[in-house]
Amino acid sequence: MRAYNFSAGPAVVPESVLAQAAEEMMDWHGHGMSVMEMSHRSPEFLQIAEETAADLRELMHIPDNYKVLFLQGGATGQFAAIPMNLARRGGTADYVINGIWGKKAAAEAEKFVTVNTAAQADPFTYAPNQTEWQLSDKAAYVHVTPNETINGVAFNGDPGPLPGDVPLVGDVSSMILSEPINVSRYGVLYAGAQKNMGPAGLAVVIVRDDLLDRARQDVPLIWNWSEKSVAGSMLNTPPTYSWYLAGLTYKWLKNLGGVEAIAKTNRLKAKKLYDAIDTSDFYQNNINPAYRSKMNVVFTMAKPELDETFATEAHAQGLKNLGGHRSIGGLRASLYNAMPEAGVDALITFMKEFEKKHG
Amino acid sequence: MRAYNFSAGPAVVPESVLAQAAEEMMDWHGHGMSVMEMSHRSPEFLQIAEETAADLRELMHIPDNYKVLFLQGGATGQFAAIPMNLARRGGTADYVINGIWGKKAAAEAEKFVTVNTAAQADPFTYAPNQTEWQLSDKAAYVHVTPNETINGVAFNGDPGPLPGDVPLVGDVSSMILSEPINVSRYGVLYAGAQKNMGPAGLAVVIVRDDLLDRARQDVPLIWNWSEKSVAGSMLNTPPTYSWYLAGLTYKWLKNLGGVEAIAKTNRLKAKKLYDAIDTSDFYQNNINPAYRSKMNVVFTMAKPELDETFATEAHAQGLKNLGGHRSIGGLRASLYNAMPEAGVDALITFMKEFEKKHG
Repeated sequence: MRAYNFSAGPAVVPESVLAQAAEEMMDWHGHGMSVMEMSHRSPEFLQIAEETAADLRELMHIPDNYKVLFLQGGATGQFAAIPMNLARRGGTADYVINGIWGKKAAAEAEKFVTVNTAAQADPFTYAPNQTEWQLSDKAAYVHVTPNETINGVAFNGDPGPLPGDVPLVGDVSSMILSEPINVSRYGVLYAGAQKNMGPAGLAVVIVRDDLLDRARQDVPLIWNWSEKSVAGSMLNTPPTYSWYLAGLTYKWLKNLGGVEAIAKTNRLKAKKLYDAIDTSDFYQNNINPAYRSKMNVVFTMAKPELDETFATEAHAQGLKNLGGHRSIGGLRASLYNAMPEAGVDALITFMKEFEKKHG
Repeated sequence: MRAYNFSAGPAVVPESVLAQAAEEMMDWHGHGMSVMEMSHRSPEFLQIAEETAADLRELMHIPDNYKVLFLQGGATGQFAAIPMNLARRGGTADYVINGIWGKKAAAEAEKFVTVNTAAQADPFTYAPNQTEWQLSDKAAYVHVTPNETINGVAFNGDPGPLPGDVPLVGDVSSMILSEPINVSRYGVLYAGAQKNMGPAGLAVVIVRDDLLDRARQDVPLIWNWSEKSVAGSMLNTPPTYSWYLAGLTYKWLKNLGGVEAIAKTNRLKAKKLYDAIDTSDFYQNNINPAYRSKMNVVFTMAKPELDETFATEAHAQGLKNLGGHRSIGGLRASLYNAMPEAGVDALITFMKEFEKKHG
């Protein structure tokens, strides 16, 4: 029996995607091999790769002047690749920080640029208003994390245009494809696949054409956006099987009606869970309501010593991975696209029972 | 029906590994989820990860003073990571080049160190004898490619000890686990997984303890061997599903009797194919026989215009991906561990028929 998997990532994959992957494992479309055995330069894999990129473009309404890259190294790899691709040595980059991932992105960038913290939420219970961002005069880019997976804090909307032509860079790992994004508002969007797009090991980078000429000479080849873009993401062997699984996930989402349709379901799922928390005296969520994440719902109990009991009893009932991130504790339910509404209902039922028992 | 897949990588995966992966896709061991959906910090995945590392240690007889890392970015990522982990800025590294991959490794390293070409085969039909290597006085390391996938050239044996204590670094992507390697002869061994270990997207790095304190400050976090080693390869989300598939492949190999057993089969498979080439006037292999690769058998015909016909007719008979690398043309049969002897027999039969028809 399938569990309800609330993991923050790697995370739940649509059941029909897994079923199709299993069915095609030994023999993809009569070709006599698994996708993972195909040469990345074979016509069969090139077809998968191109369709996958086209489906992502369609789902996200990506304008023609943006390239879509399928790379390795996850979002953490891009934490280094971004300054190397966008900033000259000795340059400055602005970071807006409203959670632990933004902080990690800035720390990694410091190896390559001078980091200016343009704004930092304190504590991580909201996102700093754009009017309060202290931007540098000559920043190579401004980096934001529209959804903070660990802290459960989200912008809930794209930032407005920036002054001048400084590019906005967004780490959308945990919200890509969960709600519409105005791509043209960004110079670069990037995401690890392991939340809304498939298995870990794939990073998607969406980059505006005019930003492809800024790379440092010493950017590692596998992250050179410009060269990768010319080579169709294939200078070296790409993570082909993850790319294929992302493609199956995109098809699944298209069949459901795309990002606009799933966004409605996501709003509903999140509202149900936040309502259950807010109407209880037993559970708390201390994020400013305007900045609550629809993907990662964090909550606590008055008695933190119950956290482990909660996670363990939920696990026994098939509600898995509800422990909060080890850096902040508490509890967290990640409600990515592939989490069915029934999973949220089951969690709420469990929470009520748990409250009765331990409240 | 399964094809015989002679792709150089991504490449054939053992049929029983694929079957098990398909069977466990929806529900791993009653846990209610696929391995690709598991949190990398869950007890279930940690068990998979640790067993996989232990099995690799056992298969390769890796001494205790070596760390085994499971990273992202493939071997091409390590082309950059190696100088950043081993050499100070302005340092020098020695490269022994006997094929296109060694050349690419050196080109990438030039972004980070001064590269000294200690020896270069010309043409790439042999490997330079160790007595002829012109080593630098103070090289941070010496880099070798014991098996050149594109050119079909192999050392066929580990290099002897180097003077002083300069570490030897070996790219064993296309020969790891195919024959015994004397790990203690090397400071670092690394390999992309997509030949003998599973799907693309995973790089295995085996590094001697005492080399973990040499990294530059600006090595990207995901490639910082020292920090990754402390974190059990998990500072960021590792490519979990590829790691699991590598684990299934290691179990398969252990059941077959390990590296020593498969090495016998590999010698036999390669001998059969080279014999078929050598006893024919129609096919040629111009690699010095002492340096012929057992993993990647390249061959040509007197009429290169027949290459495409050969690959197409073979494909129609279920013998796939026999075209040579696009940089050198000709034909190539990769005979990795998972290629059964019956596949080689079928190829030889086809080659004889093709010769009769077109010779």
